[in-house]
Amino acid sequence: MKANKLKTLLIKIFRKKGLNQTDSLICANAIINAELVGAYGHGLSRLKMYCDRINKKLINPKPKIKIKDISQSISYVDANNSIGFVAADIAMKKSIKNAKKTGIGLVAVKNSGHYGLSGYYAEQAVKKNLITMIYTNAPPAVAPYGSIKSLFGTNPICFGAPSGSKIPFILDTSISIINRGKIRFAARNKKKIPEGVALDKFGKPTTDAKKALQGVQLPIAGFRGSGLAWMVDILSGVLTGGNHGGKVKDPFDDFSGPQNIGHLFITFKANLFVKNFNNRIRKNIKTIKNLPKIKGVREIMYPGQNKYKRFKINSKKDIKISNLIKKDLKILEL
Amino acid sequence: MKANKLKTLLIKIFRKKGLNQTDSLICANAIINAELVGAYGHGLSRLKMYCDRINKKLINPKPKIKIKDISQSISYVDANNSIGFVAADIAMKKSIKNAKKTGIGLVAVKNSGHYGLSGYYAEQAVKKNLITMIYTNAPPAVAPYGSIKSLFGTNPICFGAPSGSKIPFILDTSISIINRGKIRFAARNKKKIPEGVALDKFGKPTTDAKKALQGVQLPIAGFRGSGLAWMVDILSGVLTGGNHGGKVKDPFDDFSGPQNIGHLFITFKANLFVKNFNNRIRKNIKTIKNLPKIKGVREIMYPGQNKYKRFKINSKKDIKISNLIKKDLKILEL
Repeated sequence: MKANKLKTLLIKIFRKKGLNQTDSLICANAIINAELVGAYGHGLSRLKMYCDRINKKLINPKPKIKIKDISQSISYVDANNSIGFVAADIAMKKSIKNAKKTGIGLVAVKNSGHYGLSGYYAEQAVKKNLITMIYTNAPPAVAPYGSIKSLFGTNPICFGAPSGSKIPFILDTSISIINRGKIRFAARNKKKIPEGVALDKFGKPTTDAKKALQGVQLPIAGFRGSGLAWMVDILSGVLTGGNHGGKVKDPFDDFSGPQNIGHLFITFKANLFVKNFNNRIRKNIKTIKNLPKIKGVREIMYPGQNKYKRFKINSKKDIKISNLIKKDLKILEL
Repeated sequence: MKANKLKTLLIKIFRKKGLNQTDSLICANAIINAELVGAYGHGLSRLKMYCDRINKKLINPKPKIKIKDISQSISYVDANNSIGFVAADIAMKKSIKNAKKTGIGLVAVKNSGHYGLSGYYAEQAVKKNLITMIYTNAPPAVAPYGSIKSLFGTNPICFGAPSGSKIPFILDTSISIINRGKIRFAARNKKKIPEGVALDKFGKPTTDAKKALQGVQLPIAGFRGSGLAWMVDILSGVLTGGNHGGKVKDPFDDFSGPQNIGHLFITFKANLFVKNFNNRIRKNIKTIKNLPKIKGVREIMYPGQNKYKRFKINSKKDIKISNLIKKDLKILEL
């Protein structure tokens, strides 16, 4: 399907669910972006879930989002259980505005939901020559080091910076060995997952995606990855007033209440301390790209480069839609 | 040796090298803290190196450190090639002051040197009920993903937060599988290093600490760890005006110029958005500690807890000093 046709269709679906035109467009754009960068676990595969949660009044299609300015740099957003895309869009824009005005912006969000890819919001800041750090928590997926029970989400750490070129430097890495979205995608499409990334609910290693979803995902680097996940839970949950400590509900399986996810956006000017940031980062990247490479490696890539390439290639093509999703779309459109 | 006796001795040595009393005390305290928490690679094993660099005028014992306030929240420190301890102490205090005044403090440092443990400075902020994130780069030790040559330092990521108890939550993790300080310590004491953490200069796995120092350390989690190291290089080097892209000199081996390390300190109030942060974090930690444990695990520890325990135990005992260090101390004292 052409991206534009899909966009019209998604807007129609979100409008039908009660979102206004602006918010529907924000959601459609975020979902299409996820498809175009190849992050299928954050794209159309979640559409039905969002609609189900709206139907069950767990996502508020007409939220009254409150923004409280604590200072010219610091703001606090109560998203009123909006769909995560809309809350994140407002918070990122506010963080950018604060940073443009005072050099630094710090924006916390509570009562939000899953917002897709952190990197998508980071790009907005980087385009304005800002550096940004974004944290969000997520439903239990990863066991704290020493425990056999999931509690942390895959809790991504996201960092964006201007690269001195049109391809932004965007690190957007979950602290699990692979993203939960990828496991969901594998489960939906009956594909296997790699070895060593998850345990089943009995604590045994598994490559069965469905069993992995019921079990435990493994964090990167043991105690270190577990500590990073804990940091993200504090920054996005404990600090913001959002859920934390394993209380974020799984949006697919748990309809007992809203998710109340928290997010944190830290944004500051790249040129705060040096006037030639863009030259410096360009030189930095060039130096690293010129290092001797492992046999078979053609180019040392910086974070965000691969995603940008996929976006460019996929933007020229129709968006592939699986039969499962086609069925979702048909039902939701009616 | 008793800690107090060691402190007097270290102050005497730094005074002899030209540092004033205040700065000598800052250095002595930081080094003794590293010994007490068991981070021997950041303690006395570096004393001779610092003195050598002062002798060769690569560390300035009488720096004119300039602090420029960019706003009430943001400050820029030119450390004038001071010893890293002194620059970090000034910057952390400034970051705390800015955060106390405006809610958030952002302080960048250039022309600094190795400052020991990030967590040591983080503790200062946490004691004032602040959350802090600290970044510093370091000499080449880790190969960027796809390359066979070291360029990134072990570039620690440090995060500190109040825990609601007297033991602060301090995550201080290098992005290499093990700290370079530990490899140096092993090399000095002719001990082996674990398998899978380093390659020799020919790209072959090694457990020989000396060969590992000449070779490449491996990052945690492949592309992800490499990306985190790159992020730290940008935040502490590219952004601040410090060296970056592999230009930070090894303080032990390279006497061709000052290190010009950069640091970044981000600090903000824990109670910015919620009034009961301490209750929330206490509950968060309690929930995680109560999870079912892996067989043999007595307690799920949060980052910083083990270090605190070691500090408490070691504080009651004499500080063990190896014969090698005793020799260093004797020569330096004269």
